[in-house]
This record gives sequence, structure tokens and C-alpha cells, in this order.
Amino acid sequence: MSTDTVQVRFLPHEKSVSVKKGTTLLRAAMEAGVHVNASCGGEGVCGKCRVNVEKGEVEAEPTSRIDEAGWAEGVRLACKTKAMGDVVVRVPVESSVDASVLNAAATPRHTAVIQQANLEELKEKGLFIPPVEKKYLELAPPNPQDNVCDASRLVNHLRMVHDEHRLELNLPVLRKLPEVMRKEDFKVTVTLARPVREDGRNSIINIQPGDTTAANYGLAIDIGTTTVYGQLVDQITGEVVAQHGDFNGQISYGEDVISRIVYAEKGNGLEKLSDVVVGTINGIIAKIVKDAGIDMDDISTMALAGNTTMTQLLLKINPAYLRRSPFVPAASLFPPLKAVDLGFAVGSHVTALIYPCVSSYVGGDIVAGVMGSDMYRTEELTLYIDLGTNAEIVIGNKDWMACAACSAGPAFEGGGIEHGMRAAKGAIEDFSIDPVTFEPMLMTIGNVRPRGICGSGLIVAVATMFELGLIDNQGKFNLGLDTPRIRKRRDVYEYVLAWAGETQINRDIVLTEIDIENLIRAKGAMYAGYTTLMSEVGMTMDMIERVILAGGFGSYIDLYSAMTLGLLPEMDPEKVTFVGNGSLMGAKMTVLTNRLRQDVVAVTHKMTNFELSETSSYMDNYVAALFLPHTDLNLFPRLKERLAEKKRILEQAQT
Amino acid sequence: MSTDTVQVRFLPHEKSVSVKKGTTLLRAAMEAGVHVNASCGGEGVCGKCRVNVEKGEVEAEPTSRIDEAGWAEGVRLACKTKAMGDVVVRVPVESSVDASVLNAAATPRHTAVIQQANLEELKEKGLFIPPVEKKYLELAPPNPQDNVCDASRLVNHLRMVHDEHRLELNLPVLRKLPEVMRKEDFKVTVTLARPVREDGRNSIINIQPGDTTAANYGLAIDIGTTTVYGQLVDQITGEVVAQHGDFNGQISYGEDVISRIVYAEKGNGLEKLSDVVVGTINGIIAKIVKDAGIDMDDISTMALAGNTTMTQLLLKINPAYLRRSPFVPAASLFPPLKAVDLGFAVGSHVTALIYPCVSSYVGGDIVAGVMGSDMYRTEELTLYIDLGTNAEIVIGNKDWMACAACSAGPAFEGGGIEHGMRAAKGAIEDFSIDPVTFEPMLMTIGNVRPRGICGSGLIVAVATMFELGLIDNQGKFNLGLDTPRIRKRRDVYEYVLAWAGETQINRDIVLTEIDIENLIRAKGAMYAGYTTLMSEVGMTMDMIERVILAGGFGSYIDLYSAMTLGLLPEMDPEKVTFVGNGSLMGAKMTVLTNRLRQDVVAVTHKMTNFELSETSSYMDNYVAALFLPHTDLNLFPRLKERLAEKKRILEQAQT
Repeated sequence: MSTDTVQVRFLPHEKSVSVKKGTTLLRAAMEAGVHVNASCGGEGVCGKCRVNVEKGEVEAEPTSRIDEAGWAEGVRLACKTKAMGDVVVRVPVESSVDASVLNAAATPRHTAVIQQANLEELKEKGLFIPPVEKKYLELAPPNPQDNVCDASRLVNHLRMVHDEHRLELNLPVLRKLPEVMRKEDFKVTVTLARPVREDGRNSIINIQPGDTTAANYGLAIDIGTTTVYGQLVDQITGEVVAQHGDFNGQISYGEDVISRIVYAEKGNGLEKLSDVVVGTINGIIAKIVKDAGIDMDDISTMALAGNTTMTQLLLKINPAYLRRSPFVPAASLFPPLKAVDLGFAVGSHVTALIYPCVSSYVGGDIVAGVMGSDMYRTEELTLYIDLGTNAEIVIGNKDWMACAACSAGPAFEGGGIEHGMRAAKGAIEDFSIDPVTFEPMLMTIGNVRPRGICGSGLIVAVATMFELGLIDNQGKFNLGLDTPRIRKRRDVYEYVLAWAGETQINRDIVLTEIDIENLIRAKGAMYAGYTTLMSEVGMTMDMIERVILAGGFGSYIDLYSAMTLGLLPEMDPEKVTFVGNGSLMGAKMTVLTNRLRQDVVAVTHKMTNFELSETSSYMDNYVAALFLPHTDLNLFPRLKERLAEKKRILEQAQT
Repeated sequence: MSTDTVQVRFLPHEKSVSVKKGTTLLRAAMEAGVHVNASCGGEGVCGKCRVNVEKGEVEAEPTSRIDEAGWAEGVRLACKTKAMGDVVVRVPVESSVDASVLNAAATPRHTAVIQQANLEELKEKGLFIPPVEKKYLELAPPNPQDNVCDASRLVNHLRMVHDEHRLELNLPVLRKLPEVMRKEDFKVTVTLARPVREDGRNSIINIQPGDTTAANYGLAIDIGTTTVYGQLVDQITGEVVAQHGDFNGQISYGEDVISRIVYAEKGNGLEKLSDVVVGTINGIIAKIVKDAGIDMDDISTMALAGNTTMTQLLLKINPAYLRRSPFVPAASLFPPLKAVDLGFAVGSHVTALIYPCVSSYVGGDIVAGVMGSDMYRTEELTLYIDLGTNAEIVIGNKDWMACAACSAGPAFEGGGIEHGMRAAKGAIEDFSIDPVTFEPMLMTIGNVRPRGICGSGLIVAVATMFELGLIDNQGKFNLGLDTPRIRKRRDVYEYVLAWAGETQINRDIVLTEIDIENLIRAKGAMYAGYTTLMSEVGMTMDMIERVILAGGFGSYIDLYSAMTLGLLPEMDPEKVTFVGNGSLMGAKMTVLTNRLRQDVVAVTHKMTNFELSETSSYMDNYVAALFLPHTDLNLFPRLKERLAEKKRILEQAQT
């Protein structure tokens, strides 16, 4: 354990948690699954989160909420006190409920393990095949007895001295030969692109005067509907040298893929949208090349991944039929293209590799995720989820894969939720409830008074309410509870997350039954997607051995909560990994090793697409998934046990 | 023998010749090797070419040169009388010399057999591999149960229904798919480009709505320094549908390759010259596409051949080092290119195939000639000659080839000759001399009074003078002959081909010793080239079994005369063939069958280039060739015998 990690032990719960040095005690409590009342999101104004620091070094901001005597005794606001060493903290028990009840109140947080590409491991396994390599050559200058053409001089030398065969040259290199070869007296560096297939040829894609072998870079680009990300990757070390993200310039022409397609169908809309996204990408390239301080000519490779609409728009392929039944893309596989032909402001020798798309709504971003996460090489039956408004799911392993697009709706991104918001400052992102008083513990992004609730907060809040019996398995409030926070307003029952005075918006921030219903629909759509894919291949959900989460959002999700809701199948959280931007990861891996290009066609063909709307079992599975966690609680045995245990403890305490 | 051919029998010579119906009796006499005095080139004004038509049908223009009595007896001007059937013609013998002398006077003309590509023969031999083929497909439209992408629908159909495999698609076709497939309800024609190597892929290079299988065309382009020729070739029948030639637009920037290179080295000269020749080619394409009335979209293939400078200029590859010792081209082989990338105004699916160049001065035009003439597949040891100011020679057969560029100078094109001119109206193109009176028989292009003498006329004139003893084997006049036509002027001896009054220029048209010397130098350079190549590979001239002549000029050369001069090695004239524009022929064959592309790399590598100026034996061989026909008359045994025989007959007659 690194010296930057400290242990926080909570009494009377006897729960310990390892956190980064400097973490607030409130955050540590949340991680440990210890409830501390807190309603201001961590801003320090509600004064409810008082704890006693019994031992260890902390840094606390002075506050008028605690008197001198209390301060002297070690009373602090958990939200404004940072653990700087191993500490012991006592949480005041405001009710008569004993420690066992407190322990039942919340589960500790568990986010997914972040999976990163390991180049060294690939090299050790022999799976690393450099896609481009530079060679420094000292050629013999021509003379009257040896006046073969420049190209032959180069190729002969590579053959004789470097044992390089099956070589080919392209026109941009031919154009450079006469001048470049003579610039430093026939001392040159050539860039060789390695073949993907064994019977392929070694392309000499660039020639530079002198020795430039130390500089060899590739570009990985993720083209999202909203955001475009680029990485400059060192092709020798595998490191990301620079990266940058920017909004997709197409946003001005429509927020989502459908409105982009509509725009593309008009006049020269297609050309316009292509030009705009190419402009965005060129801006990102210019920025990261400048940041890294490299020579543009040392970039040799470029890999791009995007959803099917983004891909067809980039390539100026009419996307009209993507949005019309029966939803037919123009192509699945795309040949390697000259980057300059697509308008990219890079060297004329750069090849642009475009990730293939499986169907109209399972695109190159998903194939890239499947490739980059190595899912396609595992034995374990894996569920890959790219979570968002348009979610995509892939189930399978190295032998088979089924995939589908899933219209989950915007709930995961805070859409359609009364006080829903994107994950920005003031968004409630974590949440717990006192099992007896039903008072909340709120944490917000930026530790400021709440403005609303974001996706990850919503998932935790609804899961917690369900586990503690505030709502039933249909998401309906238990009206028999003694708390002013559950109330009826405009004929809808709701729970008050924060009272007006504690918020930034001077209105009560609530979570309504309608919000919960929307979340259930969203998670139901996802779960029905998994179930349908599994049943289409004759399998059941309990066979899933591993989950990979992708998308900006996945790293914040509390896995226990997601499993409690039935958004994820129940399993050991250690078997859930997070790959972040899977699309970008796949693009990066393509830049680094030819292994992915060798496999990508077979993988794409292996990914059987199911149109959920055309799959008869989907609707039944959906209806069955419109419960917390599911009609069939036996699919979630650990939760079933936990719920029974909690019920027993709470009933014991309440009697 | 076709009905268009008639027999002309000359008396008292007893020589017969087959000529095309409508040929003048003067032309027929020349062909037969029968001398008839004629000094006006065939215009009918000198009145010297009187003959008696004894039998057969002729068409004769009335002339004041023949009185009524003569006309009634059958006297006609040979230059104005056409043989319309088999005829017998008596040539008045104006001297006392007997028929045997007359028979010795001139040899019959023999031009080279014109070699044409025979597609049917190729097909029979299994050597015909169509480079592109169209297939009409009726695809099943997509539905919700079958919504694979358009590309897969197409490829799967080709696989299942047409047994086509290893298919690949490029971006321009992908862009067309969605609209074209839906235009005629998924009935389409695809163009498949066949792989050159067996392990290659079948490229789907175009897709069109409906059935267009009947229209499939290719373009063959010869890029000459002076003139550019284009042919539109039907890829189904092999026929040339339309053709057009135009001056290379680069002429404004320099007449020859050196001045073009100089221009290309300045500023954006290279881009300019490339743009200009692309403009010329686009003009030719537009013209032949219009003439043929075809759809540009039905052109699938394009093959181009040019000399090394023309090739590098077209491709925008700096040609600077082509003109500087050690004369190094940038490249020998060029990859297939997208025609639109080179600026050609054709479909984006068209591939431009560029003929490889062997060296700075043996370019793609020569490789194309070697390929198109099939020389590279023959067992016979063949000499291929592209005759011109910059002449190229190739010697070899299917096993080996040696080649060289040969700076013959402009004599063959009438340059450096006092009354030399290009082969245009009024140029003396054929010639014979009365062995006793030394009076000439002139024929001009267009049958008008002479303006000068062109290359083929020059060759015949000098050869005739040598055979009849007017000049010696060093090209010096025999001053002992009794004729006013041999005279000295400004210290130079000359022969008067035509007196001022018989010409268009009102000056005597003469052939001087300096002219003859220039011609000897030109033919000496050529012959030294053959000899040097042969000796470099350890062979001798008598081993050559076949000659292929290329270049605009080759079809007019009288082979006996060329052999008499030592411009060609001596052999059976039937073994000399003429391919015309070899470069264009090769380009055309590349458009018609992949066989040439399969072989072209190996052939190019096989063609060993010799820089004559760097080959030590060349100068010795040149000096030895500065005689008529050569220092070593034993290299020309038939001529040696003929000269001896003539000498005997003439001496006999003169005594």
C-alpha cells in the first residue's frame, strides 16, 4: 500500500476503509458504507456531519458550527476534515439503533477496476506486432557504374543489409526520393508499414533525411456524437504523449445522430458534416502535435473509431438508410484509406484505419471497445456495456459474440429526471440514508450545496431506498414510514433529497416516483437486452462471468447499487472492469500493434447483431425487468440474502 | 489475295508486283524495283514517266504531255495512271542497256510486316486474362429479418450466386452503394477488377444501377515528348472504338526532354508541366469519349506509357537527376494509382497503370513496346528498335534482354540535312536512279512537286546511290561519272535530286556529302548500339533472328535500303515487323489482358540497361559502323553478293 494511502476506522461500526491521504472523513464514511447525516453536499453549512476524531492526524477547517469545547474534544465536521494519517473516527449515534443496524444501513462503495492496456505484457506474450518501424540506412551514392534508380537503391539495400523483403513503395514516397536521398548524402530513415496478413507486403511509407528513428508516432481518434478525443501515441514506448478532447463541431447541426442524419440528407449536408468533423479532428491533431512538440512528419499511423453514423458521415457515405427500417448501413468493413484523402492535415503517407461497424446502431466505437478491452480473446463469458442514452451491449467471448443497441433513454445522464442533471458541480453523486430516521447523507461534485442529481447519484439513491425499504420492488414509496421526507405533491409521491434552504436552487430537491419509474425503465431496457441476447444464444444470465463497462460514466457507478437495481447482473465486483473510453482504447491499440488489425475482420463477422425491437422475446424480458432488481429475485441471490438479513435486523431494531 | 489487289507486270523487265487497286503505275514500278524516270514527284508536270499500257484496265488523267496518237497507242504518264485491274505495262527503254541491267538498277521495295495484337489468338492460347469484368446482379432487397449492410449484401450475393471470392471494396464504391442499390430496386451491375497475382483480391471497383454489362471500356495512352495519343478500347471485344492524338501541351515549355527537365527544376515548373500534360490527356479523353458516344462511367481501366522524363513529369517526381551524370531515375516501377489523384477527368474508380522505366533514357514507352509486341515471350533473338532522334534499342528474347538509348541525332527525321524535312506533303519519300543515265525517279508525299526529302526518302536515296556506285562506302561521290547531277558547290560535292524548275521551292533540291555523312553517323550510332549490346552479352550480330521496328517512321522505311546502309542488320525482310506506336500498343494490351501486368515487373527487371557512353567498346563499334554498310562487309553477305553481281552487270553493260 502506498504511503499516500491512509486507514480510516469508524466506530462504533468497526468498519475500516483505505483512502487516499487528504480524503474527507465524509467521503471515507461513504466508501466504508457508514452513514453520517449530511445534507449540504459537503459544503460545511448544514453542520450535521459531526464526528469525533479519536486518534490520528487530520486537517480540519475551523467552523462556527462547532464550539470551542467540542473542538477541543475532537469534534469535527466530517465534510471539512481530511484524513492525513491513519485515524479512528467515532460517529455519534443519534438514535437508539445499535451498531448492527448501522452496519446494515449501507453497503460499502465499489467502483469498477480500471483496465489499462499493458504493452509489455503483449510483448511478452508475442502478441505485439509493431505496425510501423523506422530503419536508418546509409546507402552507397550512385556512380556511372551503378546508376540504378533511387527506388531500387533503397529497396536493394533494405533487402541485402536489413533482410527486408516483399517491399513496396507508394507515390508520395517516390516523389520524395530524389531530394531526400541526396539531402544528407544518401543517409536516410525509412518508415516501414508492416503487413497485416502474413502474405502481405512491407510498405515503405515515408523517407526522411538523416536518422529520425527515435521519433515514431500514431494518432488514435474517438469520434463521439458529442465529443471527439484524440491521443498521440509513441509507437516505440506505447505511451500516450499528448491527448485532447473537443466538442464535435457537428453539434451545431443537430444534437443526436438522428438529427445529423436528417441534416446530411439535405443539399450538401453530408459534405458539410464531414468537413466539420474533419475540422474538429484536425484541430485536436494540431493541438496535441503542438503540445507534444513533435514533427508532424513523424506521425505514421492513424486509427479512428466512431458509431455507425459518425463513421458514415466522416467517410461521406449517405447515412439516410441508418434511420429508416430495416436500418441498413452501407458497409461494415472499410478499407485502409489515405488520411489526406479524408481531409486530415497529416503527412500524405499516413494511412487512416477506420473501425468497422456491425450494424446501424452497433458501430466502430463498440468494435473498438471489444478489441481494445481484449474481450474477444478471453475464455470468460463477458458482458460489455457502453452505457449512455444510446447504450450498446455485447455478450460473448473468443468463440462467439452477440450484440445489440439498446435505447435506454436519457435517465443515466440525468435526463427525464425532475432534478436530474449532468455530472457537474453541485450534482448529488453519492447518497446514503439513515435506516431509522431516513435522513440522507449527500455528497455532491465539488462539495458544494446541491443543485440536482446526476446518473451515478440516482443509481445509488434508488438502490439505497430499495435496500432500506423506502420503496418497494416496483419503485413505489412505503407510505407507512415516519418521515417528512416522503410526501405527496401534485399527486406524485416523492422523497426530499435536500430541503430548499440547503440547496443552491432554493427549492426542495426531490426524487419522485416518476423519476424512479424512468430509471427502472432504463435499467430494464438494459437488462432485457442482456437477457435477450443470452436467450437468443440459448444461455442464461447466471453464466456471465465478467462485465466490462465503457463510457465516460462507468467509472463512477457504484457496482453494488447497479446490481441492486438490476442494471448489472449480480457478480463479484472484482469481475467488473472499467475501460473508460473503449472506442479510444481500441483506436490506440490499433496504432500500437497489428494484432488488432489481424483480428478485426473476424471479430466483426463474429459479432452477431440483434435488432431488439425485432426479437420477439425482448418485450417479455423487458416487462420482467421492470422491477427492482427483477421479477425473479433468484437471479440476484446475494441481494436476496442481504435484503432478508437487513429486513431481519431492521425489524429487530424497530420492535 | 483480296479482290482489291491487282497485278502489275512490267516489260521488258518481266517484273510483277501486287498492289492495291487504284495504285499509280509509278508507285507500282517503284514497289517492283523498276526504274522509270520521274522528276516531279508524281504531279504529272515533268512528263518523263511515260509508259505503254499494253493490257488491262487503267484509269488515266488526260494530259497535254501525250499527243492523241500516243494516247491511242496506250501511252500514259505512270504517275497519273491507276491500275484498276491486272495490267501489263511496257517501260520505254531510253538507253541501249539491256533488261538485265535494268533489273540490277533497283531492288523492289519491302516495308516491314505490320504486327497487330490478336485478341482471339491470345484467348485461344489461354493468355487472355480480362482485367475487368462486369456482372449483373439481382439482389434481394433488405427486410427486418435480413438487414445486413449493403456491402455485405453485395459481397454475399457475388459469393453465393457467382462464386466470386476474395472480394474487396474501395471507398468510392462504398459511397455509391446506398443510392445505386436502391435506384433500380437492388438490380445492379458491378465491375470487378481481377487480381494480377494469383493470391490477389477481386476488387469491386464500380457499381451502377441496372444492367450495363455491355459497356466496358479502357483507355490506352502514349505520352510522347511531342505527341500524345489515346485509344478507347472495348474491353469485351478488344476493338479500338475511338482514338485521337494531340501535341503534348508541354511543347510550349521546351521542345525536348532536356529543356522540359530544366523547366521543371524552376519554381513550380514540375507542377506546371504535370498539369499541362494532364490537360492534354484530358482533352484527348474527352474527345474520344464524345466520338465514341459512351458513358464516362463505363471506363474502368487506364494504362499509360511514356519515356522516363514524361513519366516522372506526369507523376510530379523531380526529374532533375535524369539529365545529370550518373543519370539516375527516381524509380523504375510505379504502383497502380488512382487516376483522379493524377488529375485525370475520369471516374473515381479508375486505376491508372503506369509503365515502368528501365533507366533515365529507356523508359516506359520502350517497356510497353517490348510487352505489347510480345518480344519478351519469343524464343527468337530479337532486336527491337524505336527509331527517332532519341532512339532506343532492346536485344534479347524471353530469357534475357539488354537495352540502351542511342543518340542518333535528327537525320532520320530530316534534321541536319540541307533539304531535309519531316514526312509532310512534298517530301521525297521514295527514289530510284537509272543505272546508266543516273537520272532519278522521285516520288513525293501527296504526289506534288518536291519541297525536300524526308527520312525514308533519304535512306532509299543514299542506299540506291551506294548500290549503283554513285557514292563509295564512305559516302563520297564517284567523280568519274558522266552526269550533271553530281557537282561541287561551296567546296562540297552533291547530287541534284531535282532541278529548281521541277520543285516547289524554285531551288535545286540536292543531297550533299555532308548530308550523307550525317546519315552515316546516325545509322552508325544505331548499329554500334546493336553491336555493343550483343558483344556485352557475348554474342555477335549474325545471331539476330528478328527485328521489330517501332516509332511513327518505321512503317515507311524500305528494308532493303535500311540493310544496305547498315541501319538494320541484314536478314530476310519477312523477319522484320513493324508495330507502329509500340508504347500505345503496350498500353492497349495492358488494358485488355492482365497477362502483361503479371509479367511486367519481371520483364523490367530482366531488361539490363547499358549506358553506351560508359561502355568502352561502343566507340570502336561506332567507328567501324561509319561505313556503308560497315567496315566489315562480311556482316552483310547478301549485300556483298548483290554488289558484286551489280558491279559485274554494270561493267559488262558499260564496256
